[in-house]
Amino acid sequence: MAGAITLERILALQAAYIRCIDSNALEAWPGFFLDRCLYKITTAENHRSGFEAGIIYADSKGMLIDRVAALREANVYEKQSYRHILGLPNITRNGGAEAESETPFLVVRIMHDGQSDVFATGVYLDTYRADGDDVKIAKRLVVCDSSRINTLMALPL
Amino acid sequence: MAGAITLERILALQAAYIRCIDSNALEAWPGFFLDRCLYKITTAENHRSGFEAGIIYADSKGMLIDRVAALREANVYEKQSYRHILGLPNITRNGGAEAESETPFLVVRIMHDGQSDVFATGVYLDTYRADGDDVKIAKRLVVCDSSRINTLMALPL
Amino acid sequence: MAGAITLERILALQAAYIRCIDSNALEAWPGFFLDRCLYKITTAENHRSGFEAGIIYADSKGMLIDRVAALREANVYEKQSYRHILGLPNITRNGGAEAESETPFLVVRIMHDGQSDVFATGVYLDTYRADGDDVKIAKRLVVCDSSRINTLMALPL
Repeated sequence: MAGAITLERILALQAAYIRCIDSNALEAWPGFFLDRCLYKITTAENHRSGFEAGIIYADSKGMLIDRVAALREANVYEKQSYRHILGLPNITRNGGAEAESETPFLVVRIMHDGQSDVFATGVYLDTYRADGDDVKIAKRLVVCDSSRINTLMALPL
Repeated sequence: MAGAITLERILALQAAYIRCIDSNALEAWPGFFLDRCLYKITTAENHRSGFEAGIIYADSKGMLIDRVAALREANVYEKQSYRHILGLPNITRNGGAEAESETPFLVVRIMHDGQSDVFATGVYLDTYRADGDDVKIAKRLVVCDSSRINTLMALPL
Repeated sequence: MAGAITLERILALQAAYIRCIDSNALEAWPGFFLDRCLYKITTAENHRSGFEAGIIYADSKGMLIDRVAALREANVYEKQSYRHILGLPNITRNGGAEAESETPFLVVRIMHDGQSDVFATGVYLDTYRADGDDVKIAKRLVVCDSSRINTLMALPL
């Protein structure tokens, strides 16, 4: 199967995804998703309680493109920068054409004066689908450990 | 050899291990170890000096099960949460049926009010053994960089 | 091709490299590089602006060896320790005998009293070359996110 999903392809996708964000190439970010997709940011507390809502919610690539446009408009990237560090993906299911994984993440925020802090941690709950020779994200649920994530909303996770 | 240890299997074990802890599924944690195992937490300073003692010490899966029961009793998980981020495992020896690796770790603590800090860093010195089609931990020596780890003792590392 | 560069070999090289530094085996550090190599530390701001200079600059393994000697002389390692955590390498080009990757990094500094902080973050821009059965670094450009990295200069990155 040409498009079969493997650990190596998942590692490559995850690494390329955060490279895209941290190098501020946001316009390429929606390209990691299928046209029909689900992208949601929530907190561990809400996730445990089964709340469906989410703080950020998008169910199509078009909505992600709109979001990038809004971020560019707001120009938030001038004030600080971010660095994502991913842990090892834990592949919880792999049917070849579709797979799921959980990947811990840590985001460090670097202020203009150089001060660096732990900004956010959590886990990506992902569903991938083979798309021809490519692997795309069908669903990404970003579960943030902290309940204090309103200020987060400036950047994609 | 069905049970031969590979990088991919070590990555999978490490990822599943921290997922187990960070999702608070502690009862499953002893299952990553062989029945006869060695689990020890120590500091870099003590490790360099050759002190055998360790701050936490267990030499059987039964002792790890007891430890989980004690942690549940103390109910420490209510107050904060933790996020482990692992670096890349460095496989220092691999004989197929038994292997050793060193894996750097970082633990972030998330307080109830959302404040997130670097809680602990260090390295896992592991010995794995193939156990049928599975890979288990025969020995995990957790070497913490900081000497201030008494408060750590609430969570498995 | 015996020496073909693979993801697995890049993972192994990256993991061994930071193990070397964090275990204070600095004398082995230049051995990760080709004799003729380029090693440079710079800031994201300078890198974006196309400044060639760099804060640290070495263009041979000999210069790296000299640097280790200078660090030993200055004895800076007594006062604190460091822990590098690497994210997943993003392989941006792989021609078999030569490859390039980008790898995010995070360095935590552990002070003598146990206090641990985010010390530096950034990305390694690497060029590898197969060297017999080995893979070596032909070029490492260390791009630090923060512009406040003068105090960094005590340790290899």
